[in-house]
Amino acid sequence: MEFSLKDYLRKKEKIINDKLNSIMTRLSNNSLMRETMTYSLMAGGKRLRPILCLAGAEIVKSDYKKAVTTACAIEMIHTYSLIHDDLPAMDNDELRRGMPTLHIKYKKYRGEAIAILAGDGLLTLAFEIMLSDAAKAKNPLPLIKAANLIADAAGYNNIIAGQTEDILSEGKKRTLSKIEKIDSLKTGALINASVLSGAIIGGADLKRQKSLEIYAKNIGFAFQITDDILNVVGDQKTMGKAVGTDKTNLKNTFPDIMGLDKSKKYAENLIKNALKALDKFDDKLAEPLKAVALYVIERNK
Amino acid sequence: MEFSLKDYLRKKEKIINDKLNSIMTRLSNNSLMRETMTYSLMAGGKRLRPILCLAGAEIVKSDYKKAVTTACAIEMIHTYSLIHDDLPAMDNDELRRGMPTLHIKYKKYRGEAIAILAGDGLLTLAFEIMLSDAAKAKNPLPLIKAANLIADAAGYNNIIAGQTEDILSEGKKRTLSKIEKIDSLKTGALINASVLSGAIIGGADLKRQKSLEIYAKNIGFAFQITDDILNVVGDQKTMGKAVGTDKTNLKNTFPDIMGLDKSKKYAENLIKNALKALDKFDDKLAEPLKAVALYVIERNK
Repeated sequence: MEFSLKDYLRKKEKIINDKLNSIMTRLSNNSLMRETMTYSLMAGGKRLRPILCLAGAEIVKSDYKKAVTTACAIEMIHTYSLIHDDLPAMDNDELRRGMPTLHIKYKKYRGEAIAILAGDGLLTLAFEIMLSDAAKAKNPLPLIKAANLIADAAGYNNIIAGQTEDILSEGKKRTLSKIEKIDSLKTGALINASVLSGAIIGGADLKRQKSLEIYAKNIGFAFQITDDILNVVGDQKTMGKAVGTDKTNLKNTFPDIMGLDKSKKYAENLIKNALKALDKFDDKLAEPLKAVALYVIERNK
Repeated sequence: MEFSLKDYLRKKEKIINDKLNSIMTRLSNNSLMRETMTYSLMAGGKRLRPILCLAGAEIVKSDYKKAVTTACAIEMIHTYSLIHDDLPAMDNDELRRGMPTLHIKYKKYRGEAIAILAGDGLLTLAFEIMLSDAAKAKNPLPLIKAANLIADAAGYNNIIAGQTEDILSEGKKRTLSKIEKIDSLKTGALINASVLSGAIIGGADLKRQKSLEIYAKNIGFAFQITDDILNVVGDQKTMGKAVGTDKTNLKNTFPDIMGLDKSKKYAENLIKNALKALDKFDDKLAEPLKAVALYVIERNK
């Protein structure tokens, strides 16, 4: 039977959404905070990162179930970073995934404070569920190593560094290498940690981890370039967020500097590298990650 | 030889500060973020929470060294929560520990954004160092359980819940039980997790954990009441932050409702309960925690 990416993504998305729902539903008291955290977490993201985590476990012949909690933690971290990035003090965005951003939605309850707290809450919850998962596991070490990798991707060395550089260089002319650096910190590192954490939980040896890292770095960068292309050519309704904002915010991007066609070619080339990195894996097992790589540049949102 | 709390606090404070310094110095690149995170982290806090963590390990006859990384993580989490609480969107404080708050200090670099990111960075770094510590340990389970407890105290159920209630009830009349609840969430939970995480890392059995929990809950609450008393009677210079702010911000506190004398009595009673909970421990080993309990209500800052 031929592999269907659509079915794969749908199944895995459901697994992630069910687990996220069950985690959020179990939270008690503090109902406004649960509501706000759930609002952003369940706003219909693509779940790319958690799906990559599950696929990272599967490509090394492991059961994806072992990685589900970690995958959900990654989505929480991704969501927290979006909530904080959208704040008035940061990028000041009012629309995300087709819905008002959190600080706009909860304006009447001191939206900015609520959004800061909801982000803090999701970041902390991400580590809480990973730690609680590890505390109950027979073999906690791979789960701890995965969580450690995710903390590094989310923290000082990566997402925080990327967002800091992004903010400090706003309105300034950026070179391609500067853009590449910021993208790699802000987006690439967590995509890399998504694939690798799944693989580590799945028991990947160092050689396989290395190959998956090459795969992840290439799709992560291609993902960001495609995002920037969609910010130029995309349709606001399909995208679920304002388009053309990079131009308004004076953020140079790849399409700005290289033009659209060359940027597309560049992203396609990155995907070729990503696919090549999967050559040594079992063909059947590598199907999901290969298909996801192609999806990254073919998507329209 | 008689036990000297002053010496004990000084020694343990140095251990914490040395370790924090070594962690922050090892961070590379992203120098503005390192500078801002370090600014708040090394602003001269009392280090009460990390010292409680080390003392929690010592009271169960363990070497405090096992708990040093966890203790530093607790101080990072405490510092992150102060940075975010001080933000204009939250309590809008300009002075903390005698110095400008982070968003004020870094005004020229988009201070609010920088302060949000530095807080996020410290929260994430706290988990990163605990996870990396656990990944290297021979017996990671106690470290994971301790980190899990700290995540719970920092997150949705406690600090986040407390700060949310605090913000939403600002300007409204609060009952004593409401104040007690907010204090317990915002302050008590992390103080409790400080003592208990140290004890768990030190190998405390459940009965001892229970006693230490009673100790911690009582000193945590007494600590907050004393803070509120100092907010009324304290000297801005000694306190290192603005005093009288609770009145300005229309926050009812224990001294507001009960009066100063009754509040002091109340706090003294809590400390009696805390001391009683240590009865079953070895006298010598319990000296630090007993002395800290008394210090909590006798301090002038």
